[in-house]
Amino acid sequence: MAKPFLLGVLGGMGPLATLDFQRRLLDATPAQSDQQQLPTVVWNVPQIADRQKALAGTGPSPLPQLIHGIKALNQAGASYIAIPCNTAHHWYDALSEVSEAPILHIVDATLDALAQSVERPQRVGVIATKGTLDAGWYQRRLALQGIEVVTPTEEELAQWFVPGCYAVKRGALVEGGALLSRQASALFARGAQKLVLACTEVPVALEAVNAPFLHLTWDPAQALAERCSHLWQSQGVFNR
Amino acid sequence: MAKPFLLGVLGGMGPLATLDFQRRLLDATPAQSDQQQLPTVVWNVPQIADRQKALAGTGPSPLPQLIHGIKALNQAGASYIAIPCNTAHHWYDALSEVSEAPILHIVDATLDALAQSVERPQRVGVIATKGTLDAGWYQRRLALQGIEVVTPTEEELAQWFVPGCYAVKRGALVEGGALLSRQASALFARGAQKLVLACTEVPVALEAVNAPFLHLTWDPAQALAERCSHLWQSQGVFNR
Repeated sequence: MAKPFLLGVLGGMGPLATLDFQRRLLDATPAQSDQQQLPTVVWNVPQIADRQKALAGTGPSPLPQLIHGIKALNQAGASYIAIPCNTAHHWYDALSEVSEAPILHIVDATLDALAQSVERPQRVGVIATKGTLDAGWYQRRLALQGIEVVTPTEEELAQWFVPGCYAVKRGALVEGGALLSRQASALFARGAQKLVLACTEVPVALEAVNAPFLHLTWDPAQALAERCSHLWQSQGVFNR
Repeated sequence: MAKPFLLGVLGGMGPLATLDFQRRLLDATPAQSDQQQLPTVVWNVPQIADRQKALAGTGPSPLPQLIHGIKALNQAGASYIAIPCNTAHHWYDALSEVSEAPILHIVDATLDALAQSVERPQRVGVIATKGTLDAGWYQRRLALQGIEVVTPTEEELAQWFVPGCYAVKRGALVEGGALLSRQASALFARGAQKLVLACTEVPVALEAVNAPFLHLTWDPAQALAERCSHLWQSQGVFNR
């Protein structure tokens, strides 16, 4: 017998982004009662080595803690797992190996949603950690769709992106939103027509300051939430 | 060796109130980094028998599903458990029996917070499900503090409270907020100087409509979140 549907969320990176993702799951599901909402078990344990520092070679690997969370979610009965953190997808293969439940990939969800969008921009900016940018996930896949990619410079990351993210992590959303808005403006100034907000702290902060260009952004956390919700809805829960 | 601190949250009643509780946990903790935030594992599975109907004798008991959630949280390593749903505390004793981790009681947290508050109202209204009101938890403990209690009539519950809660459960926060505001006004009209919002759907809806009397309310979900956060802070995490 198949396992009953239960979405495991490997969160904690950061804890606020994990809440934001849960809200997106609820919003993406047209439930008319509690019982129609998506069942989730959420591992929101932020005591995990800094992903950005690990990838920069200046800190320990978060892999042992990520594996611990994946195992806890599997033990709790998760039938699928989502990780609302782009950077953590560096360890996707290692985590998939220890997870009985399939892990939905945030980049796949985003690029699939993007491929289905009606408007096709010629040039897209990607806001992400250095680790995510270096991995090239978004750039390669966008290029395959014939889209030019603009990314932050190292200087911009140091000046706006990194301090913006850490501001979010200490709850200073307005400060974080201001810094990340400057990062976004720099990419628009270099010709980006749309932006992929490929770090889950970014939309949290930009929404907090009600950034005027939000309609020109794609949000991987949103794409991942929608994919999870579609999976749940395909269980036929709305026909019962 | 003591278990490492991990707060288990038995949620799902409803899923939105569970998110609201998680936000309160973060807000109650003066963290300067992800790593200082409270580690949680959240069971947000709303496929659980209706508590109001069960207590009215018109539906099945939620106890088996509540026990399943408590066991999953214990297996995941929870060192304490919080249940951000007043009505579910009807099954508190049965759940405590199967839980290795101590379960923090929402009524204790609220009444302790209330006993420490500087202003002492003479008359307090309690907004809650019929099940919670019939149990008399809040009324008895308030009476012990020498405070008179005003509660909704059966007619008011049927007209305002119950449809207000079910509106929240289907995401209609403004509609729910309007209905629950009328319930609150009725209690103020009968002399209540303050209100205990003893159902976790209520503050969610009243905040959504920015109810003008919010400063005259006590919120058990907030009291429970603060108790959890104090437990976490007492681990000395801010001295590390």
